[in-house]
Amino acid sequence: MRSLIDITDFSVEELYDLIKTAVHISENPDLYAEKCRHKKLATLFFEPSTRTRLSFEAAMLELGGSVIGFSEASASSATKGESIADTAKIVSCYADVIAMRSPKEGAALVASMNAKVPVINAGDGGHHHPTQTLADLLTIYREKGRLDNLTVGMCGDLKYGRTVHSLIAALSRYTGIKIVLISPKELELPTFVKREIVEKSGMDYVETTSLEDALPTLDVLYMTRIQRERFDSAEEYERLKDSYVLTVEKMANAKSDMIVLHPLPRVNEISVKVDDDPRACYFKQALNGKYMRMALILKLLEEAKNPVKETYSDQYVEGFKCTNKKCVSMTERELPNLFKKTADGKYRCIYCDKEAD
Amino acid sequence: MRSLIDITDFSVEELYDLIKTAVHISENPDLYAEKCRHKKLATLFFEPSTRTRLSFEAAMLELGGSVIGFSEASASSATKGESIADTAKIVSCYADVIAMRSPKEGAALVASMNAKVPVINAGDGGHHHPTQTLADLLTIYREKGRLDNLTVGMCGDLKYGRTVHSLIAALSRYTGIKIVLISPKELELPTFVKREIVEKSGMDYVETTSLEDALPTLDVLYMTRIQRERFDSAEEYERLKDSYVLTVEKMANAKSDMIVLHPLPRVNEISVKVDDDPRACYFKQALNGKYMRMALILKLLEEAKNPVKETYSDQYVEGFKCTNKKCVSMTERELPNLFKKTADGKYRCIYCDKEAD
Amino acid sequence: MRSLIDITDFSVEELYDLIKTAVHISENPDLYAEKCRHKKLATLFFEPSTRTRLSFEAAMLELGGSVIGFSEASASSATKGESIADTAKIVSCYADVIAMRSPKEGAALVASMNAKVPVINAGDGGHHHPTQTLADLLTIYREKGRLDNLTVGMCGDLKYGRTVHSLIAALSRYTGIKIVLISPKELELPTFVKREIVEKSGMDYVETTSLEDALPTLDVLYMTRIQRERFDSAEEYERLKDSYVLTVEKMANAKSDMIVLHPLPRVNEISVKVDDDPRACYFKQALNGKYMRMALILKLLEEAKNPVKETYSDQYVEGFKCTNKKCVSMTERELPNLFKKTADGKYRCIYCDKEAD
Repeated sequence: MRSLIDITDFSVEELYDLIKTAVHISENPDLYAEKCRHKKLATLFFEPSTRTRLSFEAAMLELGGSVIGFSEASASSATKGESIADTAKIVSCYADVIAMRSPKEGAALVASMNAKVPVINAGDGGHHHPTQTLADLLTIYREKGRLDNLTVGMCGDLKYGRTVHSLIAALSRYTGIKIVLISPKELELPTFVKREIVEKSGMDYVETTSLEDALPTLDVLYMTRIQRERFDSAEEYERLKDSYVLTVEKMANAKSDMIVLHPLPRVNEISVKVDDDPRACYFKQALNGKYMRMALILKLLEEAKNPVKETYSDQYVEGFKCTNKKCVSMTERELPNLFKKTADGKYRCIYCDKEAD
Repeated sequence: MRSLIDITDFSVEELYDLIKTAVHISENPDLYAEKCRHKKLATLFFEPSTRTRLSFEAAMLELGGSVIGFSEASASSATKGESIADTAKIVSCYADVIAMRSPKEGAALVASMNAKVPVINAGDGGHHHPTQTLADLLTIYREKGRLDNLTVGMCGDLKYGRTVHSLIAALSRYTGIKIVLISPKELELPTFVKREIVEKSGMDYVETTSLEDALPTLDVLYMTRIQRERFDSAEEYERLKDSYVLTVEKMANAKSDMIVLHPLPRVNEISVKVDDDPRACYFKQALNGKYMRMALILKLLEEAKNPVKETYSDQYVEGFKCTNKKCVSMTERELPNLFKKTADGKYRCIYCDKEAD
Repeated sequence: MRSLIDITDFSVEELYDLIKTAVHISENPDLYAEKCRHKKLATLFFEPSTRTRLSFEAAMLELGGSVIGFSEASASSATKGESIADTAKIVSCYADVIAMRSPKEGAALVASMNAKVPVINAGDGGHHHPTQTLADLLTIYREKGRLDNLTVGMCGDLKYGRTVHSLIAALSRYTGIKIVLISPKELELPTFVKREIVEKSGMDYVETTSLEDALPTLDVLYMTRIQRERFDSAEEYERLKDSYVLTVEKMANAKSDMIVLHPLPRVNEISVKVDDDPRACYFKQALNGKYMRMALILKLLEEAKNPVKETYSDQYVEGFKCTNKKCVSMTERELPNLFKKTADGKYRCIYCDKEAD
């Protein structure tokens, strides 16, 4: 059964097909208005995320399907101690495709290993959030006309921002991409991501602490929120926070065809006054997210008609135990501790990608 | 883009058209069962209100449309600090019409200023609740055959009861209306409402503390709940509470064609035994609310086909700051503090109607 | 108006008709995909229960209908003090059938006495849960080919497990049923159930504390969860808990055509490894639950076309007051305290079945 857990589950060709479908949907919505008639999407959100959930639900409804689900853990059977695996098995009786959001890293993977229907990862802790990346890619494609030969700035919290990591992983497969990593020292891109994705792919990159210096060079600026609690000291936060806020003044130094993206919700990192700038594309991005989710649901339901039984056993090894407290393997009952060998010769947990100790 | 924030946003003629449509729907539901096919309503409820939400959802479903949304703030992006304006912009990508409930006064107005789709105020704090008034008006019209030449008693908490204020504002535009204000001193109609609406319109009114005295004179009795915490002293509450409870005994002194309304939910202010009295119309009122919401959704979606860009700037002034702690301007980021000059020469916050200090 | 509050509200013949319809639906889903077009189900869940709620919602959607509702009390008007009776009356304006879950025993009965549409009890505290029993019966019927002449083991918490009590009541009407009650002393089947249902029906039964001893004799094993807090002492719990966990090893001693049921969610009382055993039928049971709910909704909506006004007064007596703290009569306003005389000559509360003091 084909699922989408990590953006790299799909090849570059598959992503391009999704993008083409999404563009076609946006231009011909009526052609798709009954495509999923009598199909049901289950939105299993173990933590709230209105935008993501509503985007999935709107996507399914615009395909003529319907939706069941829950929007927070307190409304789920998890409070009675039900495992992710059992939830996935049971919901497979009720729905044709599942979108799962969980604070546990690897939760969607566990669900996909147990469900009888396709599972879409709608965010698993700080780990993956591939449908956000689908929205990002479609927006870049539609606004810039290409996904290669671009200078892409990533600004804000590059350490914990999973959307940034996923976008870098996605972009690393295109040619001519240069990324500009703009963040305070405390929130730099993790070494693992830098080594495993950026350097391994041979992607060009520079790091800087100055948004203002970087701005004039960028084709795309990807803004993210900086959370106060990420900083070691309150003084440091106060000293730095304003320099990562995008204002009308700063926009004056950017290229006239640069585009600004943001996974949303924003707090104050982009001034509301920037919204009127035609280069501000973050609300278009939200709309594009809906079209990509429509294309994704169509693709997965189509592939589910001829499911290929996936085998996990031969690629994975036992003998390690994950130490990541947010990993789904910490709480899921009777879940085998499985690890995979990555290119650097290390073993990583298959659920959360944490390196074995 | 036409929205409904305050009942007086609609003219008397428009209200009459809505009433006629609602009556037609109630008599010919099948004619409307596919009117909103492929349309979506978003119910954005930042605080729970089952009846109002279910009424909106039933309305949209009976028009053949579908529904997305959330039923309390904890399930929304507001917990991540998203502004009302951003929520409205994003949800505009997912839905064709929005019904918003918020504890913040002016929230629906802010939403309507930012949404690309019509916004219906489903209650903004103690401020407005226009769709309740639509239900009230349809019930009076259907049961009494007219909206003019009526003696209407309002009983209970007239100070904080927003449904009472909205109904008075609506009735003030009809001729021959006399209102009888029945409440303890502590919960009298606020001077502002009395002066701005009742007296300005030249409406006839009397004030009394006795439900029993007023009852025989009424064509319509609008009951509301009296909350213990509204009273200065517990003794005062104990002394008074029973006199504002409608019982079978009290009903014996009312006209044989009087009708009893209540916005619901009731606690104990109308005895369950009164439900069997044919004059008890509060459950019919709930049903009428659904029909009026159907008519309203149809009207707003129709008008949205040819949206008129509204301009706010020329009617509003800056230079004041609202001091109402429940006003949306207290928390919404980068929201301009706008005031309007009212007939009495005072300046009032456009969001919550609080007078400038 | 016909409702389903207790499994014995339906005759054996009616249950058989439901089973036949459910089987037909499962084999011909397309024939039913539009049966409830323009009909609405309200899922009023005053406490969370994902599986039950999603099963009802999937059932209604697969019949072409739609769904409104809430999934926990905090999102309902109950927090404003609305009675069950009023909620039922109002929701009757919005939906064609109601599924109600409440922690209060008798809540669904009170709802059915006030609603203008059929009410399905989706669980009322520790009292009844008839649609779970429908799922159980269909699974036994489909897997064993019959509902009579079976040895059925019930294992775990037989004291508080309402699903066990309901299943025993249902099975007591078939011939040749032998039940094997497997539990620690602390969690034995209550004397009331034993006397009123098991012995009165002349059903064969044995009691044992050993799952291993009982296993080889069973045609059906119905597992339930044992909660730590049910035990008098932690030592007792630790000593016993493993003996009531079903493992691959224990399954080796069961008949080759025995079937294992579980109302779910499970915690650890059935090892995940048992899932691969073809005798493990608990996920099929979840699927069967959906089909039975579809059959039930069809039946109740069909009967609602020609509603028979039920009269309660002549069967019930006043003069007692229920002392069960979980009884709906403790909190529901102006609810008459009604009792019925049962076969043993005692008087029991009509809402929760508690014996009068």
